[in-house]
Amino acid sequence: MTTLGLTHDMTVQELSDLGQQLRVDSVRAADAAGSGHPTSSMSAADLMAVLLARHLHYDFDRPEHPGNDRFILSKGHASPLLYAAYKAAGAISDPELLTFRKAGSRLEGHPTPRLPWVEVATGSLGQGLPVAVGEALAGKRLDHVDYRVWALCGDSELAEGSIWEAAEAAGYEHLDHLTLIVDVNRLGQRGPTRHGHDLDAHARRFAAFGWHTIEIDGHDVDAIDLAFAEAASTAGQPTAILARTLKGKGVAAVENREGWHGKPLADAAEAIDELGGIRDLRVSVQPPPAVRALHVVRDGHLELPAYERGAKVATRDAYGEALTALGTARGDVVALDGEVGDSTRTEFFAKAHPERYFEFYIAEQQLVAAAVGMAARGWKPYAATFAAFLTRAHDFIRMAAVSGSDVNLVGSHAGVAIGQDGPSQMGLEDLAMFRAVQGSTVLYPCDANQTAHLVAELADRPGIGYLRTSRGPTSVIYGPEETFPVGGSKVLRSSDEDRLTIVAAGATVPEALCAAEMLAGEGIAARVIDLYSVKPVDRSTLRTAAERTGCLLTVEDHHEEGGIGDAVLDAFTDGRPVPRLARLAVTALPGSASPNEQLAAAGIDAEAIAASARLLVEHAVVA
Amino acid sequence: MTTLGLTHDMTVQELSDLGQQLRVDSVRAADAAGSGHPTSSMSAADLMAVLLARHLHYDFDRPEHPGNDRFILSKGHASPLLYAAYKAAGAISDPELLTFRKAGSRLEGHPTPRLPWVEVATGSLGQGLPVAVGEALAGKRLDHVDYRVWALCGDSELAEGSIWEAAEAAGYEHLDHLTLIVDVNRLGQRGPTRHGHDLDAHARRFAAFGWHTIEIDGHDVDAIDLAFAEAASTAGQPTAILARTLKGKGVAAVENREGWHGKPLADAAEAIDELGGIRDLRVSVQPPPAVRALHVVRDGHLELPAYERGAKVATRDAYGEALTALGTARGDVVALDGEVGDSTRTEFFAKAHPERYFEFYIAEQQLVAAAVGMAARGWKPYAATFAAFLTRAHDFIRMAAVSGSDVNLVGSHAGVAIGQDGPSQMGLEDLAMFRAVQGSTVLYPCDANQTAHLVAELADRPGIGYLRTSRGPTSVIYGPEETFPVGGSKVLRSSDEDRLTIVAAGATVPEALCAAEMLAGEGIAARVIDLYSVKPVDRSTLRTAAERTGCLLTVEDHHEEGGIGDAVLDAFTDGRPVPRLARLAVTALPGSASPNEQLAAAGIDAEAIAASARLLVEHAVVA
Repeated sequence: MTTLGLTHDMTVQELSDLGQQLRVDSVRAADAAGSGHPTSSMSAADLMAVLLARHLHYDFDRPEHPGNDRFILSKGHASPLLYAAYKAAGAISDPELLTFRKAGSRLEGHPTPRLPWVEVATGSLGQGLPVAVGEALAGKRLDHVDYRVWALCGDSELAEGSIWEAAEAAGYEHLDHLTLIVDVNRLGQRGPTRHGHDLDAHARRFAAFGWHTIEIDGHDVDAIDLAFAEAASTAGQPTAILARTLKGKGVAAVENREGWHGKPLADAAEAIDELGGIRDLRVSVQPPPAVRALHVVRDGHLELPAYERGAKVATRDAYGEALTALGTARGDVVALDGEVGDSTRTEFFAKAHPERYFEFYIAEQQLVAAAVGMAARGWKPYAATFAAFLTRAHDFIRMAAVSGSDVNLVGSHAGVAIGQDGPSQMGLEDLAMFRAVQGSTVLYPCDANQTAHLVAELADRPGIGYLRTSRGPTSVIYGPEETFPVGGSKVLRSSDEDRLTIVAAGATVPEALCAAEMLAGEGIAARVIDLYSVKPVDRSTLRTAAERTGCLLTVEDHHEEGGIGDAVLDAFTDGRPVPRLARLAVTALPGSASPNEQLAAAGIDAEAIAASARLLVEHAVVA
Repeated sequence: MTTLGLTHDMTVQELSDLGQQLRVDSVRAADAAGSGHPTSSMSAADLMAVLLARHLHYDFDRPEHPGNDRFILSKGHASPLLYAAYKAAGAISDPELLTFRKAGSRLEGHPTPRLPWVEVATGSLGQGLPVAVGEALAGKRLDHVDYRVWALCGDSELAEGSIWEAAEAAGYEHLDHLTLIVDVNRLGQRGPTRHGHDLDAHARRFAAFGWHTIEIDGHDVDAIDLAFAEAASTAGQPTAILARTLKGKGVAAVENREGWHGKPLADAAEAIDELGGIRDLRVSVQPPPAVRALHVVRDGHLELPAYERGAKVATRDAYGEALTALGTARGDVVALDGEVGDSTRTEFFAKAHPERYFEFYIAEQQLVAAAVGMAARGWKPYAATFAAFLTRAHDFIRMAAVSGSDVNLVGSHAGVAIGQDGPSQMGLEDLAMFRAVQGSTVLYPCDANQTAHLVAELADRPGIGYLRTSRGPTSVIYGPEETFPVGGSKVLRSSDEDRLTIVAAGATVPEALCAAEMLAGEGIAARVIDLYSVKPVDRSTLRTAAERTGCLLTVEDHHEEGGIGDAVLDAFTDGRPVPRLARLAVTALPGSASPNEQLAAAGIDAEAIAASARLLVEHAVVA
């Protein structure tokens, strides 16, 4: 094993040797693990070698350095290559490299931020570029720092629509400090890609979206070097480098052959020999320039909007107003929207803080990915669209949780209460989707003051935050001085004679209160809980209510699976006695109708609540 | 009001008059409703008039006619235009037109198949074209009928990545009987689109994806007529017609102005005057050619694969083999995959029935949309990818339910049990996602024979079916003669002394059985239920188990929200007494590790089950 310190003026031979080392280390890591993707790593090894040694500016001792370039391995399965590069940069040791994919190792099958140099998890293809767009936008419009963002994609993942949402956004925003490197190795998981080695086919597409394109032989280190330099000096456009490569390059048994995706080489020792043996070249990666972080946090006093009790205000209006106030108090808050800012009310923020507002048009995957990219750069994003359309970004939300990303998402137009627009526009699955996201927070306010407070609560809450807002105006029932901690709830009505508890949130809170009033007239005292914090749920209040009243009736403007009815169960899964339960939710497919007609048709209005409550208190079966 | 019968040789003036009538009727419908999108309808009125009167071949009395052209209004909010066209075609009456958006009306805010001429619901933008690709593929490769598929999109929705997944698939498959009409009216919901009236910008993109493109003035009926004819005569390529239009065309108060999206006109009477008053032109739409439906259903005897008890077989293998057998027995079964057929085992079907196999590369939205399109044409699609990556298509799955689509989706690589690949590849949210879909069926088999039977059970099940499969081999525990009805479960172990019930499914069934064995050695008898039907759930068996054993412990390889633990609650929400409950699920973020290490780390292996069971039977709090 030879150890050689390489600087950025290294020779062509040295760069080629470095590429071979990255291949050898990829083969070794996968061999030690007994699984992994060495051939997908080998195709991109020369691209990575030249990037690391000659173009990347990065301080591995200070991954948080504001001047660092960002590198995102969008083809996350090529993790052996990334880890081999970390070793070449001196960031990890050779023994650690060989812990790849083992329990407890930071070197996971697909990269995650357990490693300090990985800002976002990858492995679901087509996500790296959209997140890179978010980081590049942060650099250009927020940080005002000239770091470059490099994303390395495979050719297979160019089939994902999210790539073209990103291509569109990057071209439109003239992100010339963003470079996409496409490792066109012609072979996907199960066989050839649609376009094989037709670099022109890919280049045509990116050019049509406003990108500068360069086509090269991805194993010619001189050509790679020139391409990276050309990308860096291209003004006004992002650059896509289409690199013709061979999967498994350098080992005849697998090079350019089908059937070798995602598995270690059959004879690693022979392959390592063929690649020139084990090397220990060390690269001295160029440092970032000295820059100042421009996270000017004006942490002035937060003056949330205050609404008078009894006024009629839509919670989406309160969202827009509270976010605007939060943006005034804190310079790190940014807002994003998917071309519905007039509906979600993100437009209020856009008018007050245009420099921190980002329009992503109707492209929800890019919307969420950009929020993840901005959060990775230290910003506090709030991204909004209709609750129904956040389902478009489900895979990005899932992966954001794997990234440990602190991102707040806001879904408006929740439930059947939107009225005439019909089921395509109704968020009826959003609570289920967000509850199942690892480490998420799910909030569903029922009035404007509560909404305003919860917008502020989410600002420093770690993980994925979700706020569900409603379209139509509803009565303000809380005073502006009330507080609403995450994980809490509000008991809106209670007495010692309560015979059941009605648990509601958002649009069903006024219905529950009305039902309780009706029931009181019949001599049935009902407790009413506003479960604004759907996750985490207020176990203690629910348990107390269960003990005192014996039964719970949940009512929600959401499908019956995964929403508030299921959330209540969280309080009762520790083996202690469980109260009798009944739930009301949207079960049939709604059509068009007025908001009140919708609530009645779905069986979640005051009448329906009262009817079920009567059965429940009489120990009858609730149909 | 004038009534005039128009034939397809009508004059330019007559076509223009028809366009005006469609505008007037759009204005009237929205005015009667008090909501809706008249201006978005008015921009496309001339396009619709020429299509209806001169190019569409459709029998409104026989929407199921195999030779009918298909028309999909991708910009579903322009529903007034669609309904106005139906009236012009004599399919609906003028009084029905004015029921638009009212409770009980078939004329919903966004079109749904409650109307017999609407095959798929739209309203979530960017979905119409991908579904049209599925219909066009069905026409070309399955039906072998020359119907044309017409999709009408807005320009805003071209920002959706799903449009480019569709553009890629259509270009690659040379779908020359597919025509996309883009109503480039320059104005989105909240303001101008990225490209305004730059038709070239859109045309460049479609051309790069292999489409023939035509740019026209979308209010010049002659130009429209020529463009449609050119599209119909273009061979080897799909055609995109980029039509420059004005939102609100024809009414000065709103024409080409911002601020008029999604609302009725301020003065409908004046607008109707300006548009030439109310007309009653009737179009005699050209009939489809006489064709034979080619749905050759070979309903031979279904010979499902049979596996020996004790053999080790992955349920994904059983899926591939059972689907192949089903495809042999039934000629209407088609298989689709997202470039992971070697992992999901769809490749078995692809080898046996290549003419009914469709590869969609890594584009899950298009994968699901194509299945919806094929189902609309009467085929029985099974579409597979990793369970984790089906989240990419969540919005399409949600909308497929609104469409009443009969589509089966299969997610492999469920849960932490996949092992080393790590969280990006693990389906841990899929049960929550699919349970919350309206009218869905959710199945999660634990062995190969059960899998094979459930594949067959899904074939004629209405709605969205979901089958969750596992990566690693597991022991076959059922004989091939067992049956597994949807909505059932299997009690794998029971006695009169049972002190608790362990409810498991899929990967946790063997762990539950092992735990029960351990507990038996300690004198604790445990019932074990295999809850293979997660939705609908077997209420009766769960209730009986609850009555007899007093408490239930659920264990699942899924996040704790929305999965099996929550599904069990379905049996206990009718107000009757609820057993004590505890649940085990994946709560922390997994890393890389072997499958067994993963189950142990997540606390869902036999040891963890036994530990919780001990607490539960002793009425202790389960941590």
